[in-house]
Formats: sequence, structure tokens, C-alpha cells
Amino acid sequence: MSGSTFGKNFTVTTWGESHGAALGAVVDGCPAGIELSEEDIQVYLDRRKPGQSDFATKRNESDTVKILSGVFDGKTTGTPISLMVENTSQISKDYSDIKDVFRPGHADYGFYAKYGIRDYRGGGRSSGRETIGRVAAGAIALKILKEKGIDICAYVTKIGDIEIDRAAFDKDEIRRNPLCMPDRNAFEKASDYLKGLMEEKDSSGALVECVITGVPAGIGEPVFDKLDARLAYAIMSIGAVKGVEIGDGFDVVSKRGSENNDEFFMSDGTVKKKTNHSGGILGGISDGDDIVIRAAVKPTPSIYRKQSTVNESGDEIDIEIKGRHDPIVAPRAVVVVEAMAALTIADYIIR
Amino acid sequence: MSGSTFGKNFTVTTWGESHGAALGAVVDGCPAGIELSEEDIQVYLDRRKPGQSDFATKRNESDTVKILSGVFDGKTTGTPISLMVENTSQISKDYSDIKDVFRPGHADYGFYAKYGIRDYRGGGRSSGRETIGRVAAGAIALKILKEKGIDICAYVTKIGDIEIDRAAFDKDEIRRNPLCMPDRNAFEKASDYLKGLMEEKDSSGALVECVITGVPAGIGEPVFDKLDARLAYAIMSIGAVKGVEIGDGFDVVSKRGSENNDEFFMSDGTVKKKTNHSGGILGGISDGDDIVIRAAVKPTPSIYRKQSTVNESGDEIDIEIKGRHDPIVAPRAVVVVEAMAALTIADYIIR
Amino acid sequence: MSGSTFGKNFTVTTWGESHGAALGAVVDGCPAGIELSEEDIQVYLDRRKPGQSDFATKRNESDTVKILSGVFDGKTTGTPISLMVENTSQISKDYSDIKDVFRPGHADYGFYAKYGIRDYRGGGRSSGRETIGRVAAGAIALKILKEKGIDICAYVTKIGDIEIDRAAFDKDEIRRNPLCMPDRNAFEKASDYLKGLMEEKDSSGALVECVITGVPAGIGEPVFDKLDARLAYAIMSIGAVKGVEIGDGFDVVSKRGSENNDEFFMSDGTVKKKTNHSGGILGGISDGDDIVIRAAVKPTPSIYRKQSTVNESGDEIDIEIKGRHDPIVAPRAVVVVEAMAALTIADYIIR
Amino acid sequence: MSGSTFGKNFTVTTWGESHGAALGAVVDGCPAGIELSEEDIQVYLDRRKPGQSDFATKRNESDTVKILSGVFDGKTTGTPISLMVENTSQISKDYSDIKDVFRPGHADYGFYAKYGIRDYRGGGRSSGRETIGRVAAGAIALKILKEKGIDICAYVTKIGDIEIDRAAFDKDEIRRNPLCMPDRNAFEKASDYLKGLMEEKDSSGALVECVITGVPAGIGEPVFDKLDARLAYAIMSIGAVKGVEIGDGFDVVSKRGSENNDEFFMSDGTVKKKTNHSGGILGGISDGDDIVIRAAVKPTPSIYRKQSTVNESGDEIDIEIKGRHDPIVAPRAVVVVEAMAALTIADYIIR
Repeated sequence: MSGSTFGKNFTVTTWGESHGAALGAVVDGCPAGIELSEEDIQVYLDRRKPGQSDFATKRNESDTVKILSGVFDGKTTGTPISLMVENTSQISKDYSDIKDVFRPGHADYGFYAKYGIRDYRGGGRSSGRETIGRVAAGAIALKILKEKGIDICAYVTKIGDIEIDRAAFDKDEIRRNPLCMPDRNAFEKASDYLKGLMEEKDSSGALVECVITGVPAGIGEPVFDKLDARLAYAIMSIGAVKGVEIGDGFDVVSKRGSENNDEFFMSDGTVKKKTNHSGGILGGISDGDDIVIRAAVKPTPSIYRKQSTVNESGDEIDIEIKGRHDPIVAPRAVVVVEAMAALTIADYIIR
Repeated sequence: MSGSTFGKNFTVTTWGESHGAALGAVVDGCPAGIELSEEDIQVYLDRRKPGQSDFATKRNESDTVKILSGVFDGKTTGTPISLMVENTSQISKDYSDIKDVFRPGHADYGFYAKYGIRDYRGGGRSSGRETIGRVAAGAIALKILKEKGIDICAYVTKIGDIEIDRAAFDKDEIRRNPLCMPDRNAFEKASDYLKGLMEEKDSSGALVECVITGVPAGIGEPVFDKLDARLAYAIMSIGAVKGVEIGDGFDVVSKRGSENNDEFFMSDGTVKKKTNHSGGILGGISDGDDIVIRAAVKPTPSIYRKQSTVNESGDEIDIEIKGRHDPIVAPRAVVVVEAMAALTIADYIIR
Repeated sequence: MSGSTFGKNFTVTTWGESHGAALGAVVDGCPAGIELSEEDIQVYLDRRKPGQSDFATKRNESDTVKILSGVFDGKTTGTPISLMVENTSQISKDYSDIKDVFRPGHADYGFYAKYGIRDYRGGGRSSGRETIGRVAAGAIALKILKEKGIDICAYVTKIGDIEIDRAAFDKDEIRRNPLCMPDRNAFEKASDYLKGLMEEKDSSGALVECVITGVPAGIGEPVFDKLDARLAYAIMSIGAVKGVEIGDGFDVVSKRGSENNDEFFMSDGTVKKKTNHSGGILGGISDGDDIVIRAAVKPTPSIYRKQSTVNESGDEIDIEIKGRHDPIVAPRAVVVVEAMAALTIADYIIR
Repeated sequence: MSGSTFGKNFTVTTWGESHGAALGAVVDGCPAGIELSEEDIQVYLDRRKPGQSDFATKRNESDTVKILSGVFDGKTTGTPISLMVENTSQISKDYSDIKDVFRPGHADYGFYAKYGIRDYRGGGRSSGRETIGRVAAGAIALKILKEKGIDICAYVTKIGDIEIDRAAFDKDEIRRNPLCMPDRNAFEKASDYLKGLMEEKDSSGALVECVITGVPAGIGEPVFDKLDARLAYAIMSIGAVKGVEIGDGFDVVSKRGSENNDEFFMSDGTVKKKTNHSGGILGGISDGDDIVIRAAVKPTPSIYRKQSTVNESGDEIDIEIKGRHDPIVAPRAVVVVEAMAALTIADYIIR
């Protein structure tokens, strides 16, 4: 298994490279009878689309999805749903300067060591465009989950050293600013920070948080397929993610048991927790509370600055990576995080 | 799939509860012709065994492994290796005080919501004893990896706010102190800290670091089965782990691209990196450098302090959990982290 | 994946060799709350046990099963059920005459070519004793299916050229005679035939039929995981099986469409078929009728007659295989066929 | 898992319905560096295309394949290969007469019972057109196998009661006649037989044989993933197949051990068998001989004759299925059998 399929019962298989004819995904295991249109999927693809702000490259990709199978008379039939986005504007520019170079921070060297061959155009399979298939499939998962009262919302909480003020948390603000921050003030500061970095031909890392509401207690498996283990797998499989935590995450290191345990109480006949240090998952199984995940997203590795590296011939060289690079990856990763979380949860719910 | 099997080509299926007749694992996909004895496995089980220090409960478990199949004349035959550890001293004490109670910080409530039934003795399937199967299987993976020049070493770097001094890092010290810290001075401080917590009937979280050396460049898959994604899955599937990071991990959030990128250079005809912010993995594929993982381990949820909670009947009650509880989980998790890392890497290498 | 695990949601992993310490299986995915005792499983193991007739070798195997996990207070807990049968009487005889010989009709040569090493005692992993794990796991599947009104019954319909008379079909007779034939008269003739073969140091093939009743319409998947495809996989994975057919099977070759189609009609508000040429499966999905499978079982390859073959050194030699060989495999395969059919159906039902 | 993915290491996921926008497959796990063009695949699709003889419907499908990913500069890159065939001429005719009817011999009723909804146009997902994805993926597997000296050839050996004369076996004849029979004389007789059936508005079953040459000894797994078990799974997953046998298959029922065992001998330093009753597989592992599989293919269920059946409302009705139906399925299944055999073998070889 070369790992292009995710999930056990609700599965998605993605395919496609940055500069190939098209990219897409096949979703297998979707229940029959769910209303599904290309519109339902397009709204998510539009959120991941580049060229929408000062901090994302202006590309002319329309990224229009087509449903090729699995839907009949507007409803899913239970058979595989094939989704395709054609690469309309990927005119291959001149790649001669990077085609045999191992760009720092990129997968180039690993690909070369693994396959001995690589599609160097725009990163090939390791391009961010690969997430098109994830987002398209995730849109279907999100639709199924919504019908079950489950909602997923991700956003950026920190860029460089600029953090949101939890007291000022404004969910509506997330879609209003191009950095997907739920705090206008933090967005403005981060915006200035990023503009400074762009002048310095540099980029920034960021923190993405994702909250899943409405998952009932009892979802997950007790050993390897713990709900948090599968979520960590899903989120860490997104290109630039270098760390994943659930609930209090790395803060538990300096916590005491008496601080970290969430006491249970009854509320209207339902078991509830007084706090949510667990992030909604205990022993790999949901506890009925909000599921809280955070992902550390590294700075865009493609920067304009001169960097020293080596090429396939083993020569040490300097490169300045041309083209258009976003100064930050995270805002575009937000919808991908939501998609991967949705695919993970749907896989359990349909189990 | 109920998720008791890990891996795709080199697979391990664990079974067993805290107070059942036995616990064990079946390893499928082990190559034929590898020398393997019960001794090879026992050394790892002895490292995870409780009752070995001030900070681990004194239990009389011998945890002796038996190889029941797959080995003939001292060598593996390529067929499934069945490993079993009998539960010799799990005399069921009186569990009447906790049998229908949802202990804070434990999986009790999730199990009840999921299955409607649970083996409440010692945590049942969600007990730390489940890791016996993982460690036994991991010992086989470690043996295979060692023959290929790959070594795995985990240790504790932080307990509460007490951190090791990287300048004083002493690998030999790890096995000398019961907290598995590679710095004698930090161990002594942490030791005092934990003794204080024990007096206060409390427990502490900790940070475990794991370094994998000798993995060649080119191991991993570019999309869902990224090497770091599978490692995150493996490590997060360990009971008390709430966060996983690779390389600089969560520090990337405040880093710039120019700080975070590792520049390549040539050394004796081999591609090397000047730094290792990536933690040995780029784009899901190993880059030939040391693989560095860190796991946040939460404080032992079983504490002697009085806690308020609810029971299966929906009554709000107070509990004081009796028995013997370790004030810290992490040192016993160290060998489990090594085992899970080994199982993950072996699964790729044998692919 | 070395293929010791069967199933996707209700999975069984078998382990063990003919002359190892024990054999067993781990069942994962069994629902919680099902009453299960060792008795429930032992009855099926007793049916596959050798030493029960003129046509089966007298061995002293008690084949007593132990449930090591997954059952608490007499009920399944939803966690893996580990089943073990110890090899009490497998005193290794002198195997020096066959240890490096490739016995005709056996897997010896293939094992040698594949692994370069093999446990030659009693066939090792390719021994019929491997089916102990299948039958033990199948007993659990059969219990689950029975609660859902599904029943499975296999029997021998033909031995050599002696066939049962369908008009004289007597279900009760199956368990009364050691050849598991549902026709006393056919049994007596087959019995004489086999006694003659034994005098001639030879063995016979046979046909096993299996009928599954009570499967509702709509079970199966339309493409690769067709119900009949998974059944063929399951049944063909039994050692001596060389052919599998569903419904009219190979007879369809000379049939016309008008003869082979089963017309639908209504009966008490339910859709029924006038005939059952389909064997209960159309397009990979159950049609509500009895599922009918037949398996061709080859003659025991171990015969007393002198045969010419080669050994690991490449010498051409003659062998006469000593020990005790059954003149027919099929009667002991009957319960294995039931077990594999049950594991297959349970995997769908639990899906 | 809804079963649209086949294979463990070399996997294919098919998608598409008879009358959807397109059909296709995603192949994951193909090694990097293999030369691959659309031409390589098209030749196999052309062999399965209808409209080529008196015995296949004249449809205007061009069935032109596009490679959408995974190939760069004419070579595979190791990433998923997405294959698509657009449905150019599937103008939906008027299906009002069959849209709520359960056609005898078809999957209609099972689909309805399973999903509650179905794409009734041309059989939807259970249409023979679903095999486009299999054949396209199989073409890639066949290319890989050929480079390793493995060849696969299928043909029709029997139609109704007309059988080929083994003495007159002519491999070149297979592609010369539209019934894919390796015996001109048998083809002519079968041709007359089928013309008679067409006048009687009826159809015929047939037997397909497939021979795989060049598989070295040692391929397969000893328990569930026996080579013959996976082949049976693969072949039985083809729509109209009702039986699968390996080597002597069902003939073993009346054979003796001394007749059925293949004796080994040495030939130029290689272990060979004097006969091939085993069909190239012993104990689930290849023995180095030709692998011989036979599949029983049922008569086309769509016939012009009046048949009685029921509809979704539970009314008993008579139908005469209009449109163009082939009087025989088997010749078009020949290339599908080759494709499924190739996908199965490739999955082991790449393992």
C-alpha cells in the first residue's frame, strides 16, 4: 500500500500532481441517499484556493470540481464518488533552475532517494495542490457529519509570536480576514508582521486550532485506532504540519494529575465534564465534550532569500527560488485540517 | 476493524486485559531466518515492568514471555509469531468501590458509552498492561532494525518544570535512573519534585523524546502514509500521550522559513543537512538525518486525592482511588515509545 | 501483510504450527455483550478433531480451547478474543526421512522456495492443524449469526464416483456417519470404497456442499467485495480445496439464459425466486434465498504408496510416507467450510 | 470498506457507472520508472470493447483512456496513476419500462434491498462497463509482469456443450475469432449454436480458461492469502462468474491421491513436476509450473424472451427486455479474467 488511501470504512483515495492533467479523489463507503451537488464541494475548494489575499499567491486556478460517479438524480447511490479538478492554468514555466536541485525544507531529496525519478514541476505529488482531493472528499464527510449534528471549525491562533486573545474570540471573524484568525486585532498585528517578512523575503510558521462539536461519547477504539491517534495521523499527514496535540497537549508536561483530570458531573441527565483538559478524548474514545486539536504548521519553505544546497549531481550550489510564494502556509491549511478531521470522524461514525 | 492490529506489512495484533488470563500479541510479516529467542524479548518487557523504583508500584508480576509459534530451531520461519505473557499475580482485589464509577481522566465513561459493558478490573483493555503486547512485538522489530543499522533510543527530558540540560546529556545515565532521564542532576531534582507530589497525593506529566538513528533517506510515503504521520499515529496511540511533534515541532510556529529550513551540503559524497529542524523527515519521507520525536505524557489520572465524579446510575459522588498508583507515567512509557517507533519503521522497511 | 488475518470488520488472525507449543486465533471486532463460553467453541473443535472413525487417524489430541481475553463475566466485552489450543501430544517423531524431501501434492517445495527455511514437522504452518484457529473463531461467528436467524450447514455429497441421492437427503444423518454424508446409503457405499483405497494405500477426493439459510437480501458489495467473491476467497483458502462454485456453478456453462435466470414472484409480501440457480447471490449481493456453495476437495496427498520425488539437495529419490494418513480429507473439512462461511458472512453483517 | 479497492500493495480502486459521466480507476503502488503510455492501456480496452462481432452489441463507445496522473515524461513516478474513460455515447434511452423492475438474473433486487436507491440506467454500478477500470489497471499490471517474464493468456474452451479439442489447440486462433476460442472448428460450431439461440431470444453460458506462465516457485502465502484463494476472489468478483477452479479443479472429487499428486523430478538443475494436476499452486504457494484457472460464466441474463418478475411496488409483472443484448458474456470476459489475474499476481510480486 503506497498510502494514497485514507480510512477504513469511509475511504478516500487521492491522486494527482501539481502540474498534471487533473487532480482528484475517489470516495468509497459513502452511504446511499445523501443529497450531494458539485456546489456542496465547491464552497470548500474555494476556501483553499490561492490568489485571494496579500498573503496568498495570485494564481488563475479556477479549481472547479466535477462529480464523475456515485451520484444519481442528486443523491449518492452508495457507490464510489469520483471527484476531479482539472489543472486548467498550470502552464509549465521554466523549471530548469530547480529541476535537479534539492530545495531546503522540501521533499525533493527524499523523493529522489525513494523513487530515483520525480516530477519536479511545482513539487509534483508533494505539492499543496494534492490537498484538493482531500478537501473535496472532506466536503462530503462534513455534509454527512452535519446531518448528525457534528460541526468542525478550524482557525489560526498564532502567527510568529502574535497570538489571539481568547477573550476576544469571534467566530465570525475567521472567514472575514485572509489569515483565518478569530480576533481582528491579532489579525491586524499578524498582517503587519507578515508584510515585514515579505520584505525580508522570508516566511512564518503558525498554529492552527480545530474544534469538533457534537461528537457523542463512545466514538473511537481503545488500542491502536484511538480517536486521537487517528486524528494525529490525519493531521500530521498534511504537508507542513510538524506537531499535533489534543486538549491541553504539550501543556500536560508541567501539569499535576489534580489539575489535568476533568471531574464529571450530571447536567440534565447527561454526564458532563467540569473542564476539558482532555480535549474531548479519554483513552482513545470520545467523552462527549468538544474535541480540540492543534497543529503546528511550519513556515513556507520556498523563500526568495538565497539559500545554499546541493543538486542531484552532488554539487553544492546557491539558489534563490523564484515564482510566487505565500509568506505563510497555515491559512490555506485551515480548510485542509477541517477536511482531514471530518474524514477521520466520518470513518468512525460510518463504522 | 476494531483497531487491535497495527501495521500493513509487518503487523502486530495485541490482545488481553489487565486482569484476564494472559496478554499477548501476534506478529505477522516477520521475515524468515532471523534468530529469535524469548530472551531477546524479555529484556524489553523487563524494562517496562513495574515495581522497580520509588516511582513505580511494587507489583509481583514476572511478565515472562513465551513464544508459541513462528520460531523453529531458534529462527523465525516467516509465519506468525505468537507471544504470550500470563497474568500470574492479578488476584482480583475488591473492585466494588470503582466498578460502576467513571474515574476522572480515565476511559471508563467512553467505554461505557461505547460498549455498554466493561471489564472494570484494573482498567481492563485500557490498562497500561495492554502495552505488554506492543513491547514484546516491538522487541522483534527492534532486532530486525538493528541488523540494518537502525537504532532507537527514548528518554524523559522534562518532568513538571524540571528539564534536562542538553549540554549535560549522558546517554548511559538513561538506564541508570528510574526516571530514564539522560542527566543525573535533572533526575535528582525531578526525584525530589515527585516525592513532594506523592505526599500531596498527586502526580506529574512529562516529556518523552525518542531519537531514531540510521534510517536511510527515502523511507516514507508522500501523502497519507507520511513517515511522520504514521509515527504520530503510533505514538499518540499510547495511552497517556496527548501530543506528538517531529523535529522542532511546535517551535516552528514562531520560526521564520530562513530559520527553519535546513540547508543541504555534501559530506564524503553524501547529502547531509547543516541543521536538523526537520527532525529527519521532509514531506513525509526520511531525509537521512536522525529522526526526532517528542511525546507529551499526561500525569497519572489515578490519584489518591478526593475527586468528584458520577457513576453508571448517574449519581454524583466523591471517590478516593485506592491501590498503588505511580506518581508519573512517562518513565514506563519510554520503552513503549521505542516499541511503537520500531513497529512503525519496520513496517516501512519490510514494505 | 502476510495474510494470516481474514476479514475487514470482524477479523480473525490465526497463528500456530502443527508441532509448535500451541495454535490459536485472535478475533477482533466481535460486538460486546454476547454470551460466550469455552463450551460454545469446544463443540466445533470436537467436530474437526481427528481420531474419530475408521477414516481418520487415531491421535491423542484433546484440542481443548482456552479463552484468554475479551470475555468478562461470561460475555464478550468488544475487545479482542484470544483463543488458544495447546499442542499436548505432538511428540515430535523422527522426521529425518522427510525433513529435506519435497512430498508430492504438499506445499513443501513452495515453502522452501519462498522462505528458504521450514518447520518440516507435520507440515508446520501448512498443516491441517492450522484450521483449529479458523474453527474456533468460526464458532464465535456462528453464534452471532444464529442470533440473527442465520444458519450454516455443510456436508459431503460425493466421494470418488459415489454421490448422494438428493431424494434421500437426510440432514440428521450428516452428524451420524463419519463421512458427513446426508444419505445413509451413499455413506455405506463410500465407506466400502474408502476401505478398498486404504488397502491400496491410496486416498480419495470429495465434494463438500454448504448451505447458508436466513441471510436477508442486500448483503454484499457490488464490485470486488461481492459476497460470492469473498466466499470463494474464504473457501479456497482451505488447504485441499481446488474449486469453488455458487448455485449451479460450473453447470451454467451449458445452460441457456432462459434456464438459468430465476424468476421473481411475491409470497406473503416478500420478493421470492421460483428457482435458485443463482445460489442466493446475484451481482455479488444476496437475493434472500439460500446461499449454496460447493467445494472440490482433493485426495489426501500423503499416501503410503511409493512415490518418486526430489529433496533439497536436488537428488531424485523415492519415498513412502509413514505415519497415519486419512484416506480422505473432506469429512474433516466440513466444519472448516462452515467456519469460513460464517467468518465471511459475519464480516458483512457486522460491517 | 465498500470493496471498490482490490489488492494490498499494488492496489486498484475502480469507480463509475454505466451511464455516468465517466468510468475509471486509480492504481496505487506501481513502481517508479516504468514506461507507460495510453497506448499500452488502450489495446486492452479495445479487446473488451463491444460492437465487434455478431455476438456483441453494436455500440458506439470509443472507450478512450486518459492517464491523468502518475506518469511524467513517459514514465511512472511511483505515485497514483489515475485512469479515466469518458462515457461519450451513453445517451440515456427511455428506461421507464425497467426502472422499477427487478430483472431476473440481475443484481437489481439486491441493490434495491441494500441501498434503497439505484441508478437503473444500464445496470449502473453493476454494469459490465465497470470492468473498464479493471482492464485499464490490469494493463499496467500486465506490463510490469511481462518485464518479469510472466505472461497471462485467457480464452473460451466451452460454449453450451461445444468444447474445444485440446489436440487442436491453436493459441493464435484466440484473437482471430470473436468467441476467443483456440480451436477454429469449435468456434464454428459454437457460432452456429449461438445464432440459433439468438433466434430463440436466448443466451448461453461458457467456460473461460486462463494460463499464467513464468511465475517462479514461492509466490503466495500459506494461510488466508493463498495464491489460489486470492485468484478465486479476483475471478469470482467478475460479474457473471459462478465458479472458479485451479488445475484439475472439480475433477479431483473422483480422483485418487496417486492420480492427483504430481511427482517432482530434476530438469537442468531445476525442480519440476511430471504432471500439473495442481495447476501450479500447492498449499497456496506457486510451485513454478503454469498456473491454470477456469471460470464458469453464466448466460447473459438479459434476454428478449418474456419473463415474469416483480417490481419495486411488489406487483407481479411480465417483462421483455429491449435493447441490444449479447447472446454470450464470456468472450468479453476473457480480457477481464486476464486483467484480474494480472492484478492478483502483481500484488504478490510487488509485495
